[in-house]
Amino acid sequence: MNTDTAFQQWQTQTRARTEELLERLLPAGNVCPEILHQAMRYSVLGGGKRLRPLLVAAAAELGNRDRQACEHAMAAVECVHVYSLVHDDMPAMDNDDLRRGKPTCHIRFGEAFALLAGDALQTLAFELLSLPNGLPAPRHLRMLQTLARATGSTGMAGGQAIDSANVGNTLDQHALARMHERKTGALIGASVALGALCCPELDDADLSRLNVFAAKTGLAFQVIDDVLDCEADTATLGKTAGKDSQQNKPTYVALLGLAPARRYAEQLLAEALSALAPYGGRADYLRGLAEFSVKRGY
Amino acid sequence: MNTDTAFQQWQTQTRARTEELLERLLPAGNVCPEILHQAMRYSVLGGGKRLRPLLVAAAAELGNRDRQACEHAMAAVECVHVYSLVHDDMPAMDNDDLRRGKPTCHIRFGEAFALLAGDALQTLAFELLSLPNGLPAPRHLRMLQTLARATGSTGMAGGQAIDSANVGNTLDQHALARMHERKTGALIGASVALGALCCPELDDADLSRLNVFAAKTGLAFQVIDDVLDCEADTATLGKTAGKDSQQNKPTYVALLGLAPARRYAEQLLAEALSALAPYGGRADYLRGLAEFSVKRGY
Repeated sequence: MNTDTAFQQWQTQTRARTEELLERLLPAGNVCPEILHQAMRYSVLGGGKRLRPLLVAAAAELGNRDRQACEHAMAAVECVHVYSLVHDDMPAMDNDDLRRGKPTCHIRFGEAFALLAGDALQTLAFELLSLPNGLPAPRHLRMLQTLARATGSTGMAGGQAIDSANVGNTLDQHALARMHERKTGALIGASVALGALCCPELDDADLSRLNVFAAKTGLAFQVIDDVLDCEADTATLGKTAGKDSQQNKPTYVALLGLAPARRYAEQLLAEALSALAPYGGRADYLRGLAEFSVKRGY
Repeated sequence: MNTDTAFQQWQTQTRARTEELLERLLPAGNVCPEILHQAMRYSVLGGGKRLRPLLVAAAAELGNRDRQACEHAMAAVECVHVYSLVHDDMPAMDNDDLRRGKPTCHIRFGEAFALLAGDALQTLAFELLSLPNGLPAPRHLRMLQTLARATGSTGMAGGQAIDSANVGNTLDQHALARMHERKTGALIGASVALGALCCPELDDADLSRLNVFAAKTGLAFQVIDDVLDCEADTATLGKTAGKDSQQNKPTYVALLGLAPARRYAEQLLAEALSALAPYGGRADYLRGLAEFSVKRGY
């Protein structure tokens, strides 16, 4: 079997399954309060790479996953990701009009509803992850701890705060990496960890190994984001291109240059893949996602 | 023993304990990202009625509470409450400059950090509530489900959305009650439920009874809020007085008139207290809080 084709098929199917899950788990747009639910659905459904749910699903392939726990975790990490996009796009933050090729939530629904939709999506993530599943309750609790730690002030929101505090500043490579470890790395790491936690037979040694994989992949993903922001045009990217450099935000391209940034991402990818060595074929989907993160064109 | 004095002492002590807990459980202001943590601490510490943590603690007196679970729940409900205040005060929502007698978070730290501080306080609530405690893990999970349901799009955030969608509209009493059931009632109900869940011997019948108590108390609290907004001056209230009627927000005073609104709150209080009849003296603190909610001057 061609591994590339098998990965492509799995990715397409899992992305479709993510869409179905989110469609089903988000409150319907005709349930009160209607506008809020419509704003949540508008922001979440019908687009996105779904990288984080794919990472959950791929990590859950390393063992015998509990299906419900896995589905709830897939939806939860995407809700957290989208909540952060909705708030980041607001005028108080990045002031972006375009996201995933369509008007951002606050452009479509107004700022008050964008604020509330982001808030409610964060809550929904924790609500979904707290729903009953087939895992032992202590392991289930650990999933909630994992998501909360990755999302809060020393995780994703903290990375965003460091980013906001440093617009116009020159960060060195160490400081830039520390910012990205939180801003995107923490949730990517949590996605992989949540997938592994869905498999009761995976232990702390597995979680440590996967943590290395996720850290390298997450950083590579961010380096490539900077490369794409510099190279790509707005139509391909689905969001406003060149925005980071216009706003004088620190980027890997500004720091290293375009070609060295690409080489750095390739090196991180190699390190990420070597952390998966013990898992053989069961890690093929994780490998595929790490490669996709670096080789994607959008 | 004079019950009133005992209640006053307990309230003063428990409020001080809440302050200590929050002081200890919030990230320090010198931990990176510093400004974010300072904005979170600024918004949470040093003020507020602490009604929700007091309700947790009072409900936990009904049985043999797990101390850690109770402390985490007390801090968690206050973090959720304050996150909602920080976001509600922003220009996109109520655009308020003053809260608890000092400049609101976005006035002091800017809108980007107010947005992030609210976001991170919500996450912190779930992180604290997911920390290890002495309860059986399934009951611990139920606490997380309870807080999530109360906070999200069909709870507190949903009530705020209904409120935002109806500025300038005339709501009838039923619609106004439905809005408040979510906007303030849901978290008040969750606070009482979380306190009860800290006591392993309390069962679903207890939770149902306490749910009635909390619903009546929460609505009474809101009716009195409208009365105070109409009557009190800004200095006593610690926030801008008369704001709701200026903004043409629906209020009980607008709907019923001032004196009938006060009588309605008294009636709700009586109904709340009758739900506590089975608990005798163990419910004295809950009784005291319900009475305080209606008889307070701020």
